[in-house]
Amino acid sequence: MRMVDIIERKRNGLELSAKELHEFITGYTKGEIPDYQASAFLMATYFNGMTEQEQANFTLEMLNSGDRVDLSEIPGIKVDKHSTGGMGDKTSIPLAPMIAALGIPISMISGRGLGHTGGILDKLEAIPGFKVELSEDQFIQQVKEIGVAIISTTGNIAPADKKLYALRDVTATVDSIPLIAGSIMSKKIASGTDALVLDVKTGSGAFMKEPKKAKELAQAMVAIGQNVGLRCMAVISDMDQPLGNTIGNSLEIEESIEILKGNGLRDITDLVLTLGSEMVVLARKATTLEEAREMLIETIVSQKALEKFGKMITSQGGDKRVLDNYSLLPQARYQIEIKAKSSGHVAQIKANELGIASMLLGGGRQNKEDQINYGVGLRLHKKVGDKVETGESLVTVYSDQLDITEVEQIILASIEIGAKKSPHPLIHEIIN
Amino acid sequence: MRMVDIIERKRNGLELSAKELHEFITGYTKGEIPDYQASAFLMATYFNGMTEQEQANFTLEMLNSGDRVDLSEIPGIKVDKHSTGGMGDKTSIPLAPMIAALGIPISMISGRGLGHTGGILDKLEAIPGFKVELSEDQFIQQVKEIGVAIISTTGNIAPADKKLYALRDVTATVDSIPLIAGSIMSKKIASGTDALVLDVKTGSGAFMKEPKKAKELAQAMVAIGQNVGLRCMAVISDMDQPLGNTIGNSLEIEESIEILKGNGLRDITDLVLTLGSEMVVLARKATTLEEAREMLIETIVSQKALEKFGKMITSQGGDKRVLDNYSLLPQARYQIEIKAKSSGHVAQIKANELGIASMLLGGGRQNKEDQINYGVGLRLHKKVGDKVETGESLVTVYSDQLDITEVEQIILASIEIGAKKSPHPLIHEIIN
Repeated sequence: MRMVDIIERKRNGLELSAKELHEFITGYTKGEIPDYQASAFLMATYFNGMTEQEQANFTLEMLNSGDRVDLSEIPGIKVDKHSTGGMGDKTSIPLAPMIAALGIPISMISGRGLGHTGGILDKLEAIPGFKVELSEDQFIQQVKEIGVAIISTTGNIAPADKKLYALRDVTATVDSIPLIAGSIMSKKIASGTDALVLDVKTGSGAFMKEPKKAKELAQAMVAIGQNVGLRCMAVISDMDQPLGNTIGNSLEIEESIEILKGNGLRDITDLVLTLGSEMVVLARKATTLEEAREMLIETIVSQKALEKFGKMITSQGGDKRVLDNYSLLPQARYQIEIKAKSSGHVAQIKANELGIASMLLGGGRQNKEDQINYGVGLRLHKKVGDKVETGESLVTVYSDQLDITEVEQIILASIEIGAKKSPHPLIHEIIN
Repeated sequence: MRMVDIIERKRNGLELSAKELHEFITGYTKGEIPDYQASAFLMATYFNGMTEQEQANFTLEMLNSGDRVDLSEIPGIKVDKHSTGGMGDKTSIPLAPMIAALGIPISMISGRGLGHTGGILDKLEAIPGFKVELSEDQFIQQVKEIGVAIISTTGNIAPADKKLYALRDVTATVDSIPLIAGSIMSKKIASGTDALVLDVKTGSGAFMKEPKKAKELAQAMVAIGQNVGLRCMAVISDMDQPLGNTIGNSLEIEESIEILKGNGLRDITDLVLTLGSEMVVLARKATTLEEAREMLIETIVSQKALEKFGKMITSQGGDKRVLDNYSLLPQARYQIEIKAKSSGHVAQIKANELGIASMLLGGGRQNKEDQINYGVGLRLHKKVGDKVETGESLVTVYSDQLDITEVEQIILASIEIGAKKSPHPLIHEIIN
């Protein structure tokens, strides 16, 4: 079997066999198939897609290119959650201790954020002392003891995906549904979970701007998961404006704690409860979503989730006093208000642009090597549909420098003030 | 300008600017753009094609990546002919001296044959002593003196194409019309000709099996040529059965000489006259095709073309006595007749398969390094539409070994005997 023939078959829209995908992925991982053939394959896949069977085989091959975390020592149905990423999305942070407080083991293995804003690992590292680099043994031990851990990818997880992802990034083959689905699912399956809730974002601030595309991606991922025996479902949620009211690492930890204290903004609290209910049902701790939702609300009211988060922080080396004293989190030097230039209602908030503003402040990475400034970020005082008066503060900018001309311009250009408009519904669709 | 953005624009079906194509081709030629980005670009082009403007710019960039032969020293309108390649196609060999006999300078620069059978250079090298590797100065001198030369690519012609062609070959991006057209035309324009007749083959034995595709390729090439001020037209000709009655290097030289003596088979003689008439008109030596055709026939009747061929052979170091003594050409050890197993009419001759048979005898290259055996090949005694009796010879195989079981099987399988059928018309269409 020659790689050129495999590329040609994919180019001609034929279905590749399990053997052909095996040859490609193992050959590429070993370096026997060169990047230039892999990139031609990726571009042909961009155009011709993959059948459900190809997707399943492709994902399995990437999974099998590396190690699979063995969580069998942990009793119970292990549940994980994955989001395709959105601005201000910190749902995993309150969600993990809430689920764990119900006795469902939460073993989250996450990658580093490569978008404008920090990923969940970066956010957690804003907590003084918090470590995300645990060994697999430490990780399993912690989940067994306190029921929850969130760590960085360990060991040799899906090396084929790592190599292919880097190649996709420089060959304009990132946004292909089968490639995205295979990449996410190979890593998630490798992380050893039994059940998985996917949060697929759609809207101007999401990778998948059109709901139709988001639905295709969700369906592809759910099909892959179910194909390998994973309990899997997806929620398609809105990312037309930032989620919650903060962007930035310390600020998002603070907002996460507020959610656990019952003071979260309605949109993000609602998303946490929606995703959480699905997780609880997949873990068979409740039979209906309504029942699950009540149980989750009770973890907030009883402060059991907050307590669980404290235990997780302590177990991962962090200072749990942050729960009651946000000033222990890294702080920016200045707080600068960005005021409305006109009156009306907020008609639109461009989530991506606010992400760029936060990155420019130092809250995210432009390059892989960049150091993150945990203290900086944005606090939104208005969301879509809110009334605004001229001179009222739209956003507080947390910055280490006083000159924020560029950031201010971006923020003012991203928040459109106009006629009264309702925000999009938060949950677009559920894919089972 | 980043290469990934150029790939993305091509992937999204946008038209690339001259500057973008310049960045790509110059960057790739210098090795600053890696193969894996070039191959993603090629695959995106396979799917999205190129506009006429892109094709012209792409070709010009490949042309400008190397040297351009300067033929300005040679007076008159220089004419060249290019064929997309077909089995038994030796038209250039009689054509060049026929045109030259009319006082039109013929400067043919050809590449090595990479198909099953030898290319024109390999065929000429069957003539003892014949050299195709002349310096540019020698080449120009010869055209000035005797009016005709056929040589191998000199110097640094379109290095971008050379590099891209090698990449296309291993990434399943060979059969893309804009890439084929750009590859051929950049080399032809670089060879310094003023006018060009393209012979685009179609049919089972051609690269472009469907007339529709052949027409698209012809139109693309003519548009590129006209865009850069080259006098250019294309003939779409049939390649459903081999052209003439020989395949193999010595045998095709012999057939070429027979054409110059007026004894050529009707199909190939007709194609030579059709292509030649277009060349004569492009060179402004005749005003109508009919007039040009008469002039060309006269070069045969008067033996002026044969005489010109003799001069060319001598000038390029060959033994011109082959014109009257074919036994001076390399000869195969054995001649073996392949006889018909049934009676009827020849319904089909699979040209490609006969090419493979000739290659297996040693007449073509399986790999670039293979040595060609000039003496071996096939002589066809029947063509499509001819009546055949059981036991009559269909083909004489010229072989250096007696055991030709595989070759015989291929030949018998490629010649279908059945109901009476007319061959396809030789000329499908003329593209101006």
